[in-house]
Amino acid sequence: MSEQRLAVLDSSVASRLPDYSKSLFDAKTSKGLTFAAIADHIGRDEVATAALFYGQAQASAEDVQKLSQLLGVPQEAIAAQMMGFPDRGRAGPMPPVEPLIYRLYEIVQNYGYAYKAVFNEKFGDGIMSAICFSTKVEKEVDPDGSVYAKITLRGKWLPFSRF
Amino acid sequence: MSEQRLAVLDSSVASRLPDYSKSLFDAKTSKGLTFAAIADHIGRDEVATAALFYGQAQASAEDVQKLSQLLGVPQEAIAAQMMGFPDRGRAGPMPPVEPLIYRLYEIVQNYGYAYKAVFNEKFGDGIMSAICFSTKVEKEVDPDGSVYAKITLRGKWLPFSRF
Amino acid sequence: MSEQRLAVLDSSVASRLPDYSKSLFDAKTSKGLTFAAIADHIGRDEVATAALFYGQAQASAEDVQKLSQLLGVPQEAIAAQMMGFPDRGRAGPMPPVEPLIYRLYEIVQNYGYAYKAVFNEKFGDGIMSAICFSTKVEKEVDPDGSVYAKITLRGKWLPFSRF
Amino acid sequence: MSEQRLAVLDSSVASRLPDYSKSLFDAKTSKGLTFAAIADHIGRDEVATAALFYGQAQASAEDVQKLSQLLGVPQEAIAAQMMGFPDRGRAGPMPPVEPLIYRLYEIVQNYGYAYKAVFNEKFGDGIMSAICFSTKVEKEVDPDGSVYAKITLRGKWLPFSRF
Amino acid sequence: MSEQRLAVLDSSVASRLPDYSKSLFDAKTSKGLTFAAIADHIGRDEVATAALFYGQAQASAEDVQKLSQLLGVPQEAIAAQMMGFPDRGRAGPMPPVEPLIYRLYEIVQNYGYAYKAVFNEKFGDGIMSAICFSTKVEKEVDPDGSVYAKITLRGKWLPFSRF
Amino acid sequence: MSEQRLAVLDSSVASRLPDYSKSLFDAKTSKGLTFAAIADHIGRDEVATAALFYGQAQASAEDVQKLSQLLGVPQEAIAAQMMGFPDRGRAGPMPPVEPLIYRLYEIVQNYGYAYKAVFNEKFGDGIMSAICFSTKVEKEVDPDGSVYAKITLRGKWLPFSRF
Amino acid sequence: MSEQRLAVLDSSVASRLPDYSKSLFDAKTSKGLTFAAIADHIGRDEVATAALFYGQAQASAEDVQKLSQLLGVPQEAIAAQMMGFPDRGRAGPMPPVEPLIYRLYEIVQNYGYAYKAVFNEKFGDGIMSAICFSTKVEKEVDPDGSVYAKITLRGKWLPFSRF
Amino acid sequence: MSEQRLAVLDSSVASRLPDYSKSLFDAKTSKGLTFAAIADHIGRDEVATAALFYGQAQASAEDVQKLSQLLGVPQEAIAAQMMGFPDRGRAGPMPPVEPLIYRLYEIVQNYGYAYKAVFNEKFGDGIMSAICFSTKVEKEVDPDGSVYAKITLRGKWLPFSRF
Amino acid sequence: MSEQRLAVLDSSVASRLPDYSKSLFDAKTSKGLTFAAIADHIGRDEVATAALFYGQAQASAEDVQKLSQLLGVPQEAIAAQMMGFPDRGRAGPMPPVEPLIYRLYEIVQNYGYAYKAVFNEKFGDGIMSAICFSTKVEKEVDPDGSVYAKITLRGKWLPFSRF
Amino acid sequence: MSEQRLAVLDSSVASRLPDYSKSLFDAKTSKGLTFAAIADHIGRDEVATAALFYGQAQASAEDVQKLSQLLGVPQEAIAAQMMGFPDRGRAGPMPPVEPLIYRLYEIVQNYGYAYKAVFNEKFGDGIMSAICFSTKVEKEVDPDGSVYAKITLRGKWLPFSRF
Repeated sequence: MSEQRLAVLDSSVASRLPDYSKSLFDAKTSKGLTFAAIADHIGRDEVATAALFYGQAQASAEDVQKLSQLLGVPQEAIAAQMMGFPDRGRAGPMPPVEPLIYRLYEIVQNYGYAYKAVFNEKFGDGIMSAICFSTKVEKEVDPDGSVYAKITLRGKWLPFSRF
Repeated sequence: MSEQRLAVLDSSVASRLPDYSKSLFDAKTSKGLTFAAIADHIGRDEVATAALFYGQAQASAEDVQKLSQLLGVPQEAIAAQMMGFPDRGRAGPMPPVEPLIYRLYEIVQNYGYAYKAVFNEKFGDGIMSAICFSTKVEKEVDPDGSVYAKITLRGKWLPFSRF
Repeated sequence: MSEQRLAVLDSSVASRLPDYSKSLFDAKTSKGLTFAAIADHIGRDEVATAALFYGQAQASAEDVQKLSQLLGVPQEAIAAQMMGFPDRGRAGPMPPVEPLIYRLYEIVQNYGYAYKAVFNEKFGDGIMSAICFSTKVEKEVDPDGSVYAKITLRGKWLPFSRF
Repeated sequence: MSEQRLAVLDSSVASRLPDYSKSLFDAKTSKGLTFAAIADHIGRDEVATAALFYGQAQASAEDVQKLSQLLGVPQEAIAAQMMGFPDRGRAGPMPPVEPLIYRLYEIVQNYGYAYKAVFNEKFGDGIMSAICFSTKVEKEVDPDGSVYAKITLRGKWLPFSRF
Repeated sequence: MSEQRLAVLDSSVASRLPDYSKSLFDAKTSKGLTFAAIADHIGRDEVATAALFYGQAQASAEDVQKLSQLLGVPQEAIAAQMMGFPDRGRAGPMPPVEPLIYRLYEIVQNYGYAYKAVFNEKFGDGIMSAICFSTKVEKEVDPDGSVYAKITLRGKWLPFSRF
Repeated sequence: MSEQRLAVLDSSVASRLPDYSKSLFDAKTSKGLTFAAIADHIGRDEVATAALFYGQAQASAEDVQKLSQLLGVPQEAIAAQMMGFPDRGRAGPMPPVEPLIYRLYEIVQNYGYAYKAVFNEKFGDGIMSAICFSTKVEKEVDPDGSVYAKITLRGKWLPFSRF
Repeated sequence: MSEQRLAVLDSSVASRLPDYSKSLFDAKTSKGLTFAAIADHIGRDEVATAALFYGQAQASAEDVQKLSQLLGVPQEAIAAQMMGFPDRGRAGPMPPVEPLIYRLYEIVQNYGYAYKAVFNEKFGDGIMSAICFSTKVEKEVDPDGSVYAKITLRGKWLPFSRF
Repeated sequence: MSEQRLAVLDSSVASRLPDYSKSLFDAKTSKGLTFAAIADHIGRDEVATAALFYGQAQASAEDVQKLSQLLGVPQEAIAAQMMGFPDRGRAGPMPPVEPLIYRLYEIVQNYGYAYKAVFNEKFGDGIMSAICFSTKVEKEVDPDGSVYAKITLRGKWLPFSRF
Repeated sequence: MSEQRLAVLDSSVASRLPDYSKSLFDAKTSKGLTFAAIADHIGRDEVATAALFYGQAQASAEDVQKLSQLLGVPQEAIAAQMMGFPDRGRAGPMPPVEPLIYRLYEIVQNYGYAYKAVFNEKFGDGIMSAICFSTKVEKEVDPDGSVYAKITLRGKWLPFSRF
Repeated sequence: MSEQRLAVLDSSVASRLPDYSKSLFDAKTSKGLTFAAIADHIGRDEVATAALFYGQAQASAEDVQKLSQLLGVPQEAIAAQMMGFPDRGRAGPMPPVEPLIYRLYEIVQNYGYAYKAVFNEKFGDGIMSAICFSTKVEKEVDPDGSVYAKITLRGKWLPFSRF
């Protein structure tokens, strides 16, 4: 575990995020906690937990209480903002300049119409919801030791209304 | 099958794609084939098959032969271009204006930094490859009948070189 | 009826739309039909009917049949494309340059956060769907003779999933 | 009421808004007031009230007095700016990155020309004013319990002058 | 008259305008008519007349008849489109690259807030309409022979509704 | 006069303007002066006066002296910057998001080529200067009580040099 | 002369230029004429001559006559458009992607404020006109054989009007 | 000299420039020095001197010493940064919004391809360097008293390598 | 050789390139030649040869002759354009959407300032020329069989002139 | 060495970088160290070392220890952030405005498709990785004393997966 590196909040990103992001990341760093550990503690998915830290997801009262307890951040300092309604979508620029995030963007750019065609033929005229939606990240190791990252996106299918 | 609706190529998209896209889509429409049926025939994934039609993936000689046979498009009309090297990424504008594709873009916009944080803590400093990569689309039905779309993205983990 | 002016398809817009748009508009012009009349005939809302003409909505087999009959456009010339899956969102540039459409854009620009705040407090953390959605346009005349346009937007409320 | 969540002002949005926005939101949070409650108190629509808080609408002297009294914010701290002339349109980026606001933008993008065609045929050559304009948000529950959000936009019809 | 130079339609602009623009300009060129002469004939302002040619204004039945007669363009070739509803705002790029048009843009850029402040103090919270609007161009010669161009913009004042 | 509302400087605009803008606006607010009153005092046009406050015009030594005296702002605090050379054009974004300023932009967008055509035929190949230029705002009331805003733009005509 | 290479019109640029550009360039190529030779013949500067070919400058009747004679292009094919009023500024994209043109853009980008400061102190508050303007290109060879290109820009100084 | 106006540093530009820009401009203002005077003192061209102040050029040790002496700014406060390597190109936005700088941009926009054609025919395939480059500003007065500004751009001609 | 795949010209790219690009690529495809083979034949580097085909480099008379002979394209069909002066930089959009080209762009984005710092300390204040420049591509295979691509960029160092 | 100039951190760039960038650059300046010297000390490449300073590369524990020792910056002030995961790609704007960085961008713009064609024919369908990647800068002096800069880019070749 001593080898474990932690995601930190770049000071130049912080200005685009709510104030509590910095408090949470600072506490996470000083406690030496991974998102996996925090997710376990609050009973949410790892990606959702990171999204909470970046101000991209809404916290329940219980989330706030548990985060406050685990991280030693006073509840009243974060409750109103974290339980308010997130102003999503502003963590980084689009197109992304971060190589890791760009690769996801590139997948949408290259396969967007292929997904649309397959979705339409499989489900009809509609969309996969990004709201009634969940996602997770997994690690897979091939027999030859190659490491693969796997992202699952799962959203409710919403057909276009006819009117 | 009479109820089956087919993905078609919008005439206004065609000008951004290689010439064979139109030929393939026209043949697909007149034969009344879904991407699922075509994918079965050529032994590739459904998304990869649609990507071939949109000029976003490279065809093998065997792919060309099987598509030619199934769709009745002369092999020599499509082989050179389809077996050449695709000029990827130009099928649609970014940010996407198509609602279905926009939802995927929105997922990257909202969860980009959360993915990065989780990936980094799980795998280290690197990226999930979008090249050494595969993807698939599945349909899931909940016990209450709700329909869910599931996309899986699976890419090789590439650590940044130290130099 | 001789005073009635009809919406026509600007030749410079046509290149961004599917081929059938031009056929439908031409027939509409030569028959001298309003969208209200066509909507009555096919049993859909006026806005949905116009959206069909602009390639922004999907037609049912019955829609195609009725349009074909009313407008004298051969069914086989339009069925595959109109019953395919529309490539939505490309009719005009954004920000809009057309004054009428710009006013709608301006409403989103000015009142976007106000809508969000009111929606959130009334419904919780989520969005109003633009997919499971309908809209209509009405004309109201005040006692003093002033004419008002009224647009109603009605969408399913979709709460963000917790994960 | 204990379950009621309140819209708060994201610290990263505040820099784009007039200074009084922060004061009003802070007071609203500490008093635990919804926009519905504040709108009742000042006798204005809920959306207009939220727009006032975001610096997108002009306050009357009476509005200022009532807000000051309800929220405990000294009148002289806010009167000059709130009764001045709002610098509208700068609360968020366009295209919107917030999913809720994006859905409204998407409606304009997809149905813009359909609205134009229907408006023109119903009213002639002109626009629906976004100035001589009001709007409201309503909640509707279907017999099966589905919740719908309804936005009404109502603006004066302005015909283009002939000159 | 032999010295008179005429505004012509640049072939590279034509693709952004409705088809009748080219017909009208071609006829204007071959008849050797200025916009001033045409405006006289149809009884409209010179700027409005030029706007008609560029597809930025709507023609009345009488306008079409008079233009047809003066220019020798068959009425049926232009009536439907010219009496339809113009798709305004697409004649040129913004920011303008044409030096003459850029100067007008620059005036808005430099004096925009000054106009707003003066308008607001003179008229209250509202806008000068660009719809219920007319404009004209005049030539003035100073005693020393210097030539000045004068544009007058006159629009209805529209106060923001209170709601 | 007690009803008079004053243009104020939005705190979020101030960061784009020179420091003296804030000082001048603050003094204007506390003295309760309109731009009309200030323009009278310094003997300049109302629009030019507002432009001075927004850092879009250069002040003479006499302007500085009179403003200093009227507003009670020490001359030495503002003289160097106001008599320096303005960095014009940065008060607001383009395209404008403020509805009032957008309407002016829209006029350029819609009538730009019409102005060019009329100017060219009236004056030849050249431009209307935006430098050797003046402008004013007037209020007109129609017999029926309708209020109109009128902007006059007057610039020297500059023919393109032949070389 | 056999070594002389001639500027030609790239087929992909031609679509942004007036039709006569292609005719003139084609004739120039087949006659094997440089711009220097053509400029001599018509008695205009070399840069102005090239600008005529690119549709960026207006031709006099005499220019048209001489070009027609020299290049063997029928006068009536080019006179109306070339003597009309050029739609300037659209030959290439900005920022330029052509390396040679980019270097000029870079000079403006890097030295823009330096020029402004020097101009202002030397001439006062105003601009160097780009309309009442001429320019030329010269070749200079240093004693050591190094070749230098020299561009001279000369424009009338226009002071801002005081109003 | 009492009439002499000095270029000052707009406070809103300062944030885009290195810190020493503000120090140098402040000293220049309080000493009442023009760029011409400073250029004489340090033995560099006026434009280069202004470029130094805007952080667009590199200072030699001697430049720093002389500027320090003339302006009374301590050498150690500016030496490291001014003798470091400038981060050029960020003083203002492109396209420029300042009218004076825009005119230079417009010259590139209008005459860019004409310059390229003339350069290519005169010098071959290459560019005029913007690095191995100098520039100067001069004032010319015509016999009739008209004032002209003249900019000279002189750069080494660099032929494209053949490889 | 039967396994060799050839780079082809995507029909959707062709419209941005000079006409000869299509002729050359078509001939290359029908002759089944790689760029390596063509480069050998004409005695130029492989990258330069491909650049010739994409209209990004200038051909010598000998290049044209050899290409004509090898590919069977008549010399007179390509000589004037290929020996003219290329309009560089327009083959694809920037930022690139093609994954391979994006990776090169990303290297500039991520390491740009690092290159600058290292260059400056090694060479002084200046740039690496992209004109007096050559580049090549090599393939390297590691002992473990991993394949590496190596690009070498070599440009003349150009110091900024002091003036 | 007394002549050695050092790369410094422009104060206007610092706000886009992590806080430790400023600390490291300040220490580097006061110690008078080049990147070459620092690279020697920490045993990494010069470009990688500069990239560390700009927050574009991840530090190992040993890197931090050695930098801390060499530069006299307390380890605890920089360890968490430098060993966290860099938020790459934000050091400067794209397209670059800095001339040195622009030249690299221009190489991608001009030769992008040529590289793609050569890579594809040499390696197949894939990309050169920018992650599993290293780069270096070298100085070469020709026999005639001309100085050349050489950049080597070396990345793993990644073939597109077939699925």
